[in-house]
Amino acid sequence: MYHPKPYQKCEMPEFSGTLGVLVLNGSLKHKSESSNTEELAELVIENMKSHSEIDYEIIRLADKNIPAGLGFKESEDDEWPKIAEKIKKADIVLFASPIWWGGRSSLMQRIIERMDAFDEEYIHGGRNTLLNKVAGIVITGSEDGAQATLSSLMSMLTFMNFALPPQCAAYWVGEVGQDPKDDRERRLKNKAVENMAKTMARNLVFYAKLLKDHPIIEK
Amino acid sequence: MYHPKPYQKCEMPEFSGTLGVLVLNGSLKHKSESSNTEELAELVIENMKSHSEIDYEIIRLADKNIPAGLGFKESEDDEWPKIAEKIKKADIVLFASPIWWGGRSSLMQRIIERMDAFDEEYIHGGRNTLLNKVAGIVITGSEDGAQATLSSLMSMLTFMNFALPPQCAAYWVGEVGQDPKDDRERRLKNKAVENMAKTMARNLVFYAKLLKDHPIIEK
Amino acid sequence: MYHPKPYQKCEMPEFSGTLGVLVLNGSLKHKSESSNTEELAELVIENMKSHSEIDYEIIRLADKNIPAGLGFKESEDDEWPKIAEKIKKADIVLFASPIWWGGRSSLMQRIIERMDAFDEEYIHGGRNTLLNKVAGIVITGSEDGAQATLSSLMSMLTFMNFALPPQCAAYWVGEVGQDPKDDRERRLKNKAVENMAKTMARNLVFYAKLLKDHPIIEK
Amino acid sequence: MYHPKPYQKCEMPEFSGTLGVLVLNGSLKHKSESSNTEELAELVIENMKSHSEIDYEIIRLADKNIPAGLGFKESEDDEWPKIAEKIKKADIVLFASPIWWGGRSSLMQRIIERMDAFDEEYIHGGRNTLLNKVAGIVITGSEDGAQATLSSLMSMLTFMNFALPPQCAAYWVGEVGQDPKDDRERRLKNKAVENMAKTMARNLVFYAKLLKDHPIIEK
Repeated sequence: MYHPKPYQKCEMPEFSGTLGVLVLNGSLKHKSESSNTEELAELVIENMKSHSEIDYEIIRLADKNIPAGLGFKESEDDEWPKIAEKIKKADIVLFASPIWWGGRSSLMQRIIERMDAFDEEYIHGGRNTLLNKVAGIVITGSEDGAQATLSSLMSMLTFMNFALPPQCAAYWVGEVGQDPKDDRERRLKNKAVENMAKTMARNLVFYAKLLKDHPIIEK
Repeated sequence: MYHPKPYQKCEMPEFSGTLGVLVLNGSLKHKSESSNTEELAELVIENMKSHSEIDYEIIRLADKNIPAGLGFKESEDDEWPKIAEKIKKADIVLFASPIWWGGRSSLMQRIIERMDAFDEEYIHGGRNTLLNKVAGIVITGSEDGAQATLSSLMSMLTFMNFALPPQCAAYWVGEVGQDPKDDRERRLKNKAVENMAKTMARNLVFYAKLLKDHPIIEK
Repeated sequence: MYHPKPYQKCEMPEFSGTLGVLVLNGSLKHKSESSNTEELAELVIENMKSHSEIDYEIIRLADKNIPAGLGFKESEDDEWPKIAEKIKKADIVLFASPIWWGGRSSLMQRIIERMDAFDEEYIHGGRNTLLNKVAGIVITGSEDGAQATLSSLMSMLTFMNFALPPQCAAYWVGEVGQDPKDDRERRLKNKAVENMAKTMARNLVFYAKLLKDHPIIEK
Repeated sequence: MYHPKPYQKCEMPEFSGTLGVLVLNGSLKHKSESSNTEELAELVIENMKSHSEIDYEIIRLADKNIPAGLGFKESEDDEWPKIAEKIKKADIVLFASPIWWGGRSSLMQRIIERMDAFDEEYIHGGRNTLLNKVAGIVITGSEDGAQATLSSLMSMLTFMNFALPPQCAAYWVGEVGQDPKDDRERRLKNKAVENMAKTMARNLVFYAKLLKDHPIIEK
């Protein structure tokens, strides 16, 4: 099981530029509604700021038009190609999802399906354009399923070429059978989750900085 | 997510004999120590008693010698063959396991590996000797992983020929990052888990009785 | 692992009416394109016909408008409520999905998210309207992930109140790293998959007939 | 799905010392018998040698006495403490497991349970002694379950503080329903698996070298 640990500081690698951070939030709610998943992702972002200059964007997938399909562009108003561009530019990508019956949301799953077309579009790159990027995962749910959800994402991410630093994930899940109305309140009181977010932020930034100066360069 | 429901009664099928119930408890603790998993399994057993005469046995796997291997009998003092006999005689088998990093315990996993040899030993039966038996699942853990653990068991059980009634499982998991010392206390207060155990007990007995009079008979 | 078995016949319960069968196909392809998942579901349907009169419908989810959300009806042209009606009327529901990175497709996941609202709409029923229905699962993928995908569906289905007969699933997955262009051809040659479909069809019909005359009736 | 890719070379970081590599093989077979899992792990080791001096050891867990339990040392002849020492000394640890019903073997699961005691024993270290180590995963199975097995290991490994480089895993799984007697032969012919092993070896060595000179140092 996850053992809570106090947060510990560390020296950062030398890189002093700005890191690009992209959050893909698979919440089923639109931007106008508050999202537990987004709030936890924001906490990670906040903690990153103490380690580096960052330039970040949070995309609420529920507000985007991302049709099902196998192509790089599925329709005239398909917003996936723009998101794909942003993934390509980011140094750190956070995959943030609520849990629905033991798995990621349909919106997060859609993104994963569409990422399969990376290879087709970028003939001179494909998934290799994702090499030297760092991935992090944020999961929230009323109860159960966080580790199943994040572990399945991890296996996809490693084969997509992302680097996964130690403690690359933060999650909150409550006790089974509680009233979901209090989820937010219980999450905010949870000290272990706060420390997970801090350590995760530290390690994501550490690895992103390190890989800026020491990337894997294929030839 | 799991939605807690009040317990509801139902009429039982006519069968009035005694049902044999076997619990395989994969807790890492020996019989002398209390086990959250076993207590929840016992609660299911208690509730079964109000629906049928039952004859039950709980096997604490931590107290048995069950070596790793692929054969039906792996050593002189291998206790698996006796357990296999008990499984064959039971009408209802409960697979009860704690969660360790998102999966069943090594003791429960060992049982599953050994069940693979059912086919070899019983040439005129194999997994088919498990047809018309009903399976239930009991899972406990300090936090997260219940549904991943029970779902993986379900897929094995269906291919092994067990019937899985509606709500065939009961589980308790706590909020992430809490002190495991209070797990038992929080579990005992959890009304949703109590109702899961009640409904599960009702449905397991219903199906076991129904299949006694209406088994699938292959030819 | 799954051990292939020859198909065996059995006597069916007495019920002689027509069984309603609904297939929800989560393939990412539209109806105009052939789908491995649908062809395997059709094979299950074909085999059902030798055991019972059936009335069936296959819904290609890629052709329906099913928006993300938590309500019973999310927009004027939301097609989920009609699908929900069909689920309520069916005796057997097949959940058919391709595998995408170890999990069900976004279209199948969407259905599961929308099923969460069953409870809200049917105040005098909710998930209980699904009691005494039988579920089956069909999974196909170029390689790996069938059991993870079907097991996660099973855990959702049991808590939704579906009955899961022995061998309630059929799947095809190929060897890792093969050319997906030949998937169909290799699947069609696979004798084990054909037998899975046959046994699954037999058991789904057996249980559906049995539950017609012996349902769990809550009070 | 996993898309096979040709292997590509890359420059390595400067570190020129010897890297310690430990393989934990959870095969159910003893050393005297050949193991698919071990052969694939050996292929990864072979490929590492072209990138660095390495000093490696493969532990066949089936040959060790590792009792179930929660303590650091469970009995007089408990061999876990020695294995724990070796993990502490290694730069790269490979977790190699066969698949049994969608999950890791009982022997690999046992190791994971015992790793939970790292925290207790090393009061001034615990899981933090695992920081800056690199983990890789090797999975083989007759059919299905590789990604579920490796993904569940990944989630445990990240929280244990291991770094997971891009493409940190290699696996072989065959088509469903084939004769396991030919598994080895089919695996050896599989070009995609060979490339997975090569890229994995390259990335594990790259990260291990990089972290030797640029470790995270907590204070």
